[in-house]
Amino acid sequence: MESVRKTVRQRIRVQSPISRELLAECLGTCLLVTIGCASVAQFVISNGERNAWIGLNLAWGFGIAFGAYVCGNITGGHLNPAISIMMYVLGNLTLVRALLYSLAQTIGAFFGAGIVYYTYYDAISKFDHGTRAVRGPGATAGIFGTYPDAYVSVFGGLLDQIVGTAILGLIVCMVTDRRNHIPGHLGPLLVGFGVATIGMSFGMNCGFAINPARDFGPRLFTLIAGYGWEVFSYNDYTWFWVPILGPIIGALIGAWVYKLFIGLHWPHEEVDIELAALKNNRRQVAEDVVLIKST
Amino acid sequence: MESVRKTVRQRIRVQSPISRELLAECLGTCLLVTIGCASVAQFVISNGERNAWIGLNLAWGFGIAFGAYVCGNITGGHLNPAISIMMYVLGNLTLVRALLYSLAQTIGAFFGAGIVYYTYYDAISKFDHGTRAVRGPGATAGIFGTYPDAYVSVFGGLLDQIVGTAILGLIVCMVTDRRNHIPGHLGPLLVGFGVATIGMSFGMNCGFAINPARDFGPRLFTLIAGYGWEVFSYNDYTWFWVPILGPIIGALIGAWVYKLFIGLHWPHEEVDIELAALKNNRRQVAEDVVLIKST
Amino acid sequence: MESVRKTVRQRIRVQSPISRELLAECLGTCLLVTIGCASVAQFVISNGERNAWIGLNLAWGFGIAFGAYVCGNITGGHLNPAISIMMYVLGNLTLVRALLYSLAQTIGAFFGAGIVYYTYYDAISKFDHGTRAVRGPGATAGIFGTYPDAYVSVFGGLLDQIVGTAILGLIVCMVTDRRNHIPGHLGPLLVGFGVATIGMSFGMNCGFAINPARDFGPRLFTLIAGYGWEVFSYNDYTWFWVPILGPIIGALIGAWVYKLFIGLHWPHEEVDIELAALKNNRRQVAEDVVLIKST
Amino acid sequence: MESVRKTVRQRIRVQSPISRELLAECLGTCLLVTIGCASVAQFVISNGERNAWIGLNLAWGFGIAFGAYVCGNITGGHLNPAISIMMYVLGNLTLVRALLYSLAQTIGAFFGAGIVYYTYYDAISKFDHGTRAVRGPGATAGIFGTYPDAYVSVFGGLLDQIVGTAILGLIVCMVTDRRNHIPGHLGPLLVGFGVATIGMSFGMNCGFAINPARDFGPRLFTLIAGYGWEVFSYNDYTWFWVPILGPIIGALIGAWVYKLFIGLHWPHEEVDIELAALKNNRRQVAEDVVLIKST
Repeated sequence: MESVRKTVRQRIRVQSPISRELLAECLGTCLLVTIGCASVAQFVISNGERNAWIGLNLAWGFGIAFGAYVCGNITGGHLNPAISIMMYVLGNLTLVRALLYSLAQTIGAFFGAGIVYYTYYDAISKFDHGTRAVRGPGATAGIFGTYPDAYVSVFGGLLDQIVGTAILGLIVCMVTDRRNHIPGHLGPLLVGFGVATIGMSFGMNCGFAINPARDFGPRLFTLIAGYGWEVFSYNDYTWFWVPILGPIIGALIGAWVYKLFIGLHWPHEEVDIELAALKNNRRQVAEDVVLIKST
Repeated sequence: MESVRKTVRQRIRVQSPISRELLAECLGTCLLVTIGCASVAQFVISNGERNAWIGLNLAWGFGIAFGAYVCGNITGGHLNPAISIMMYVLGNLTLVRALLYSLAQTIGAFFGAGIVYYTYYDAISKFDHGTRAVRGPGATAGIFGTYPDAYVSVFGGLLDQIVGTAILGLIVCMVTDRRNHIPGHLGPLLVGFGVATIGMSFGMNCGFAINPARDFGPRLFTLIAGYGWEVFSYNDYTWFWVPILGPIIGALIGAWVYKLFIGLHWPHEEVDIELAALKNNRRQVAEDVVLIKST
Repeated sequence: MESVRKTVRQRIRVQSPISRELLAECLGTCLLVTIGCASVAQFVISNGERNAWIGLNLAWGFGIAFGAYVCGNITGGHLNPAISIMMYVLGNLTLVRALLYSLAQTIGAFFGAGIVYYTYYDAISKFDHGTRAVRGPGATAGIFGTYPDAYVSVFGGLLDQIVGTAILGLIVCMVTDRRNHIPGHLGPLLVGFGVATIGMSFGMNCGFAINPARDFGPRLFTLIAGYGWEVFSYNDYTWFWVPILGPIIGALIGAWVYKLFIGLHWPHEEVDIELAALKNNRRQVAEDVVLIKST
Repeated sequence: MESVRKTVRQRIRVQSPISRELLAECLGTCLLVTIGCASVAQFVISNGERNAWIGLNLAWGFGIAFGAYVCGNITGGHLNPAISIMMYVLGNLTLVRALLYSLAQTIGAFFGAGIVYYTYYDAISKFDHGTRAVRGPGATAGIFGTYPDAYVSVFGGLLDQIVGTAILGLIVCMVTDRRNHIPGHLGPLLVGFGVATIGMSFGMNCGFAINPARDFGPRLFTLIAGYGWEVFSYNDYTWFWVPILGPIIGALIGAWVYKLFIGLHWPHEEVDIELAALKNNRRQVAEDVVLIKST
């Protein structure tokens, strides 16, 4: 029995680092979108009775936290092409990896949307009487992709996505800057709180996508699931690319703002102490013993 | 005085590990159900004025957290037959223990429902004018067991329970996988946040039981307390077994998904470092001293 | 300048441990009641527009957390006569201290109510047109002391207070049991979350006083502030003593339940390891070095 | 490429500590105000549909947390002139620094308001039909600066700001007092929870500014952005200075209350142990080894 298990395990086992990383980003983003889109489904279908706006914000926040815990020790837990590309620009990731991560994230988000769609199939069908729609009183496309409020201009929507993701990028840089001494096991929770906060402060105009994969994957799913081409043609094709382009620009701005105001100016000694602390602590204890002995 | 205390203590003291574990799981699940069902009571009886959906979600989440803190250092804090059976299938628990845990959890949940019933006796009686009902405007059976919304099909309900518990199983595997470096004292809180999140995202269709004991124990209590046989016959006997079977299937799926995407693929060196870190740190310090001295 | 400071400091400095402890409990409970009662004021006066039930629960929870952080390193952070008496019965506190703590807590709660009363003076006067009342549409006495809902019987109210405080007592015992390995700096936050949770689950019947000082101190203040004798005579004198007696009984039951199910049954070796870990770690490192050297 | 990067970095790099600190406080406060004011915008413009009061409280709380994480390791993370002046009075900061910090914070807050104004430009224009107003149904000035409710007297408003900021000052002193053993990485989160709590308990009368920079910076911005001189002349010039003066007085009272009840009375040995623990732990291990060897 146990030996069968072992053989199965060894057969399945993936050894290539890049494959492991893509599997991890795919699962993490799938978990994020499953949790997040389902919370929007509850909000929309129950007309706010089985979820308030705060519940929707917290669900996306915890979705980020759990998604990032799941893949954090393997890839760092990006879950977001804008963050992967930011990491490439900052020199922490190769371009190939950044692009492959983005693809894996989008695939994960696509399947997450599918899980939500089929689990809420009965509920959606009751709500829209079987007519999948992007606009109108029975519209449910907004459960998956985001759609801006009617008053938002193209430039306003782009600015909204840039500002929201700039805050996210800044928070990610701050949490992962080792000189801020935030323990690794708190990182995903803090970034998750950050996303929840962005939903509370920049969620009204366009639904805080702030993530190309989280928006494009589910949007593609709704195209296939029967919502029609309007999921892309909405507002004369002036929207669907905004939550793809905006977040990529925004995350970079957030990262550079962090660098310009904080990251570039750490005094050297602090950097050195940081590096020293990274070395094995045990060794230093032992060396001190010898030092004292020899004097 | 103190000696009397000591004697009493020694008389009461349980030494058999399995008995200790069953006591712990029973208390933990009782605490979970007491907190959780009481929050639903507040929500139902006050028509949402003394508890919003978010309060209900957070109460179940903190109920899980406190229940798991209470028994976590003794059993790991399952509080849920689906998790115990998952642990058996993963090889972390014997079958006998998994079954006994499930029994203890169901007993705890039964008594938790009783505590809520009697503490809210005045309130329930005012609300339903003395007629305990499963359906209708004065229905209060939903405080204890879960009942699906009218639009949910049998398959839809089963899928809902499977997806919800798969997320729970995945989170439990992630939190307890030592290679994710999540400190033990944060585990119960994170799993609790996970359950709250499931309530925000998969709580609308069927009330997020995602736990056979949490659902069957209180349901049995309502049968005895006077809600009649309908608590089981609801929807022509097509519901009551769903929150028993669905979570067991779901937790296993969640665990396997975690293994397939993450757990099976850790590089060997990471596993070794992990094992080494588990050994006594002090010994290594001392050995290093000798090593350096001898060179 | 600096020397003047030093002299002033030494003059003011309290050296008697008991006085320090009473000052700490008094301030902690004052902070708790200031935050908590003010959140109820916002809820009542704005008719739920400037605070929902969840905000009220979280405010009492964080009130407990901050109060306990303030005095936790001096007294353990009881803030509640029921907890102080529980600690006396468990043998962790002398009777004299338990009684003095209770007095200090009640004084702190009294002043906390005063701070809220004067800060919300304009708002209360607008709300009740200058007539301080315990009942009716302009009633504001419930901001300070708690008053049960009309449907609650005397026994029902007592049971409600006992169950609520039993959960609190159990959580306090669990958090402070060192064998559960919960870091001290998380204790106040967890107990605070516990109180918030009790507000979400046992807050509807009687307003979750679960604390004699938190209820009696502000009630006394309202008597003096002009709410009249009804603050005590409410429901024919069948209420005001319930949130005093109920919590004391409840906390003891919670503690004993914890002991009976968990606390008494820890295996001896676990206790020993615990004690060893408490000893200075440094010494052991050094001794190991000698041991290895001598072999 | 990498060498170009290095050169750019060295050119931009700020070496003067005071400049680094001002940059950090400016960015932190800008982040706080961007998040916080945007959450008020969502609340006001959506009439509470896209943000409840709890979301607004949590957004300001997390805004404080993220702002303080951003600059915490450089300046301590004040984000608030009242806290900087409190730190000066407590002897932890020079007067020049306190004043410069306050200036940097106000500038940051000014720009934060600007980011919110332009990101919500479409939404504000839809809401007020293009007429920026301080009062009336289409008023949006309250998104930026705070304005008291109509029933609040001048003295009542001042008392409200003093009490709210006293709680903040007390929490900051408690969190930063090393003898309370709160890990540095939790400080910003706890202070953030504190601000959220103040919003739940002292947020109704005047909108919990409790921070001169957070109030004056955005108020100045609204003057320039076209809200007219009324942003200062509101209530016959009896308001705008209240959230400047009140917080400064309040923070000092909070700090002194903490000192009088807790901070001044720590026993000497505790202070000594604390100091010893601050010294390098490694050294002590090594010295113990020698000590034991020599005996």
